Amino acid sequence: MNGNLFSPKPTKNNSHSNFGNLNGYFKQKLHSISPSSLADMSQSWVSWNEKFVDGRYGKLSRTTRIKCSSFEVGNKFHLKDVIEAQQFDRVTLSAIFEVALEMEKIEKNSVGCQILKGYLMATLFYEPSTRTRLSFESAMKRLGGEVLTTENAREFSSAAKGETLEDTIRTVEGYSDIIVMRHFESGAARRAAVTASIPIINAGDGPGQHPTQALLDVYTIQREIGKIDGIKVGLVGDLVYGRTVRSLAYLLAKYEDVKIYFVSPEVVKMKDDIKDYLTSKGVEWEESADLKEVASKCDVLYQTRIQRERFGERIDLYEEARGMYIVDQNILNVMQKHAVVMHPLPRLDEITINVDVDPRAAYFRQAKNGLYIRMALLKLLLLGW
Amino acid sequence: MNGNLFSPKPTKNNSHSNFGNLNGYFKQKLHSISPSSLADMSQSWVSWNEKFVDGRYGKLSRTTRIKCSSFEVGNKFHLKDVIEAQQFDRVTLSAIFEVALEMEKIEKNSVGCQILKGYLMATLFYEPSTRTRLSFESAMKRLGGEVLTTENAREFSSAAKGETLEDTIRTVEGYSDIIVMRHFESGAARRAAVTASIPIINAGDGPGQHPTQALLDVYTIQREIGKIDGIKVGLVGDLVYGRTVRSLAYLLAKYEDVKIYFVSPEVVKMKDDIKDYLTSKGVEWEESADLKEVASKCDVLYQTRIQRERFGERIDLYEEARGMYIVDQNILNVMQKHAVVMHPLPRLDEITINVDVDPRAAYFRQAKNGLYIRMALLKLLLLGW
Amino acid sequence: MNGNLFSPKPTKNNSHSNFGNLNGYFKQKLHSISPSSLADMSQSWVSWNEKFVDGRYGKLSRTTRIKCSSFEVGNKFHLKDVIEAQQFDRVTLSAIFEVALEMEKIEKNSVGCQILKGYLMATLFYEPSTRTRLSFESAMKRLGGEVLTTENAREFSSAAKGETLEDTIRTVEGYSDIIVMRHFESGAARRAAVTASIPIINAGDGPGQHPTQALLDVYTIQREIGKIDGIKVGLVGDLVYGRTVRSLAYLLAKYEDVKIYFVSPEVVKMKDDIKDYLTSKGVEWEESADLKEVASKCDVLYQTRIQRERFGERIDLYEEARGMYIVDQNILNVMQKHAVVMHPLPRLDEITINVDVDPRAAYFRQAKNGLYIRMALLKLLLLGW
Repeated sequence: MNGNLFSPKPTKNNSHSNFGNLNGYFKQKLHSISPSSLADMSQSWVSWNEKFVDGRYGKLSRTTRIKCSSFEVGNKFHLKDVIEAQQFDRVTLSAIFEVALEMEKIEKNSVGCQILKGYLMATLFYEPSTRTRLSFESAMKRLGGEVLTTENAREFSSAAKGETLEDTIRTVEGYSDIIVMRHFESGAARRAAVTASIPIINAGDGPGQHPTQALLDVYTIQREIGKIDGIKVGLVGDLVYGRTVRSLAYLLAKYEDVKIYFVSPEVVKMKDDIKDYLTSKGVEWEESADLKEVASKCDVLYQTRIQRERFGERIDLYEEARGMYIVDQNILNVMQKHAVVMHPLPRLDEITINVDVDPRAAYFRQAKNGLYIRMALLKLLLLGW
Repeated sequence: MNGNLFSPKPTKNNSHSNFGNLNGYFKQKLHSISPSSLADMSQSWVSWNEKFVDGRYGKLSRTTRIKCSSFEVGNKFHLKDVIEAQQFDRVTLSAIFEVALEMEKIEKNSVGCQILKGYLMATLFYEPSTRTRLSFESAMKRLGGEVLTTENAREFSSAAKGETLEDTIRTVEGYSDIIVMRHFESGAARRAAVTASIPIINAGDGPGQHPTQALLDVYTIQREIGKIDGIKVGLVGDLVYGRTVRSLAYLLAKYEDVKIYFVSPEVVKMKDDIKDYLTSKGVEWEESADLKEVASKCDVLYQTRIQRERFGERIDLYEEARGMYIVDQNILNVMQKHAVVMHPLPRLDEITINVDVDPRAAYFRQAKNGLYIRMALLKLLLLGW
Repeated sequence: MNGNLFSPKPTKNNSHSNFGNLNGYFKQKLHSISPSSLADMSQSWVSWNEKFVDGRYGKLSRTTRIKCSSFEVGNKFHLKDVIEAQQFDRVTLSAIFEVALEMEKIEKNSVGCQILKGYLMATLFYEPSTRTRLSFESAMKRLGGEVLTTENAREFSSAAKGETLEDTIRTVEGYSDIIVMRHFESGAARRAAVTASIPIINAGDGPGQHPTQALLDVYTIQREIGKIDGIKVGLVGDLVYGRTVRSLAYLLAKYEDVKIYFVSPEVVKMKDDIKDYLTSKGVEWEESADLKEVASKCDVLYQTRIQRERFGERIDLYEEARGMYIVDQNILNVMQKHAVVMHPLPRLDEITINVDVDPRAAYFRQAKNGLYIRMALLKLLLLGW
């Protein structure tokens, strides 16, 4: 961690040279393919990535967890973009979490931290998300970096003007060193990453992915419970539209002996794709209608908001669903001493306000962990391990 | 001023420890009370605050005005939040003005000033106010600090999502060191301050308070006239909806031998609450319909804009009111040489453009003083005296 | 270049003293005149400016082009505002381009560049233009400067509140060191410059000027072709509403032996004013309907977007016009090896995507050059040559 953390900025010409010729070739190839074959490409991209990661960390994993400096060996691995939760295997997650832990220390004495001085991050938001944007911009500035902000990026590629996302990315990459992008279309972040020669972080692309949220959720479990293997997690509330619980379930499947409980109103039940995936990975799961019983067994109770906007005209269904599973003092009373309540925020009344003062209420700490995870990712994408 | 101004950043863990156990206790208590009892709490908060301030400055006031360094004694006093004009007594005002004067020097040679380096200010604006926001952001950056901006903070707590202000504050305080907040609801700033563990500055909360405007107004009088005791002030224009004149009248009552003239159309006359308050404090005031005569007597002629938006359908009343008292060359002709014209801006035609070139036109200097006052407050809230 | 580039920030009191008494007098005079006589003033301002520039560069031009340091002589010349393309003669253009070339080097190793540290740029945008704004803000931050952003500056001077542009400028100049302004009204930038005591850069004022775009276009020709004298340029597409081609034509007239081809649908043909101007300056031009033939002769093919918003209800005319002249592989096939395709962006399908991979596709490099030109202008306006 130490030496490398303060290493000089790589010159922009060779900032991706860490990937070696293989990547150069790969990137070039991507440039010349048609959009219709992107699905295939992404498949091979992921597997290539995983192979590469495994190849490196398979060797290193025995010695790695003791000293962060082991990540510096030859500086050969390089996190290139953050596009989807699936791109991370558990060894990479563990490595990111170690850097995030470093970031907690840095933030507490942030006055002197200038490791990203001279770097410029563009927040290219095609739909506003103040919370996510502020979190990323705080992360960048806590590390001494600078920010270009836009929350009305739709104007760039408006129907009226009709510029493609690819053209916008090619322009903005000329003005910045890294792009944090939020988009209304699933897959937009991947398209941006294929185009850009600088790193792209997906800060949510429509119904698609929001990988930094998934990372901060797992990081919070690690920090609060001390481990992820062997834990019991209750996922509560909107399990069909809430992309956070879906991503979280996916990531939890990478750990050992995890047990997942689904507690949700009938209209927003977890879909079969995730259930089948968990089964295929040997993750035990069950559905329950008894929040109290689940709460008494869980290490983590992950509550979510029922999203009114998903119900359209059926306000009656929304009202019925939202009141069904509330985390309140009664639930706290049956929870174990070491267990925690999490929530991606914003919350309405699905967690009552009096829960906030209980030490097991972890959701504001969870929000803060978003800062550390984003600091870690910015550091890793711009400076490497 | 000197040494302390450049003291190292307090670690965030104990940045409020200056308040000692008393405050810790007080803050905790506030956290566990219901919103309905907030009115009472705020009462006791104010009186506690005033007592505390008086207790300290009662002792110091005899020696204070000579050297700013006397504020450093033990670093025991700490400005915690800026919520309302009423929280400042005249000794505190005087101390803030001394710091603002220092800031004038710093701004003129700002290239080197980095006293707030590493600090992050969030401008959380629930309604846009570009002028106020730029002034605060300039102040922060002139001192080497950094800024997270949002002008669409309503999205945070939109009806659709329904997050409480308190939850928003708990999230944003994790990303920043100080929050400058503008809100559409009276009392919002106080609620934020009760919730936050970092300083809150009220940049206007609806029909409520806009304390930094009040401070810069008094500071401008001090700078332009050289004193506040014994001055004659004409408050002109919209005295009912204009919160600046109301706050200014309130603050002027803290000084000796001040005489206030109210000059306004019948529909926007000063209300009895301020008149009664002034009377109770022994401040002489009178109403007048003769702007020329008032202008000839005053040290300060404080003109304000008649706000069209307050008149709804009654455009006729607005048109009648707005043309009634105009500061023009005729008014300047009767004013004393040392007197000044002030205005909170923006102005329409209630001061004619040809007045601008007169040295007694102080309103743009007044706007600039807003920068110095905000620099001073940021310095005081983050670093102490 | 060297020494002066890193010279200390001039104190703000005398930052414009480079203009000497003449300018002080001139500025004062401008302040006391009525808006109605502005047209005349601007006339005399331009001719004064040109005389001044010519006076200086007439003397220097023999020795200048070799060493940039020759611009430092006595530091007597000072770029004050950037309002319109016409204010630059070719010697000034050449000097700006030399600084832009320096900026290319600085940007590539930007981590250490702090020449504008302590300077604050306000981006005062009365209409959003994310691309232009990000480019300016990136330029400022690449040089170590700071930025105050507003994209909703209309609020400042909204009909509801009715503040004049002049009052807004007088306020914002108190918070910043330079103002980059985009406005919806032609002539707004000049009005701002007349009012302000700090430099103003016009980032587009309605149908009026967008001088930094014009500068980056000429700079791109210089960088791509290596010279401007003697080149052949094809201007293609919307030649009536596209202010970029109009400004470019104007600037090209300052060079020797330039030949211009106009290729456009009948409804958006180049107007007579520019044609007459070119003729008066001895610039050869012709209109053509044969893009392929023009492409085969040109050094620069400058394509533009047909702007749908200009056609109102006549979508049929728009559709007819937009498909008429497309730069595609067929056009590339006849172009010379050293020639380039330029475009101000955003582009729709007037240049097909497969052109992008050809080395002669210069439009993204052109966008990047916007960064260097703006870095150069910020440096020149704030620090001098």
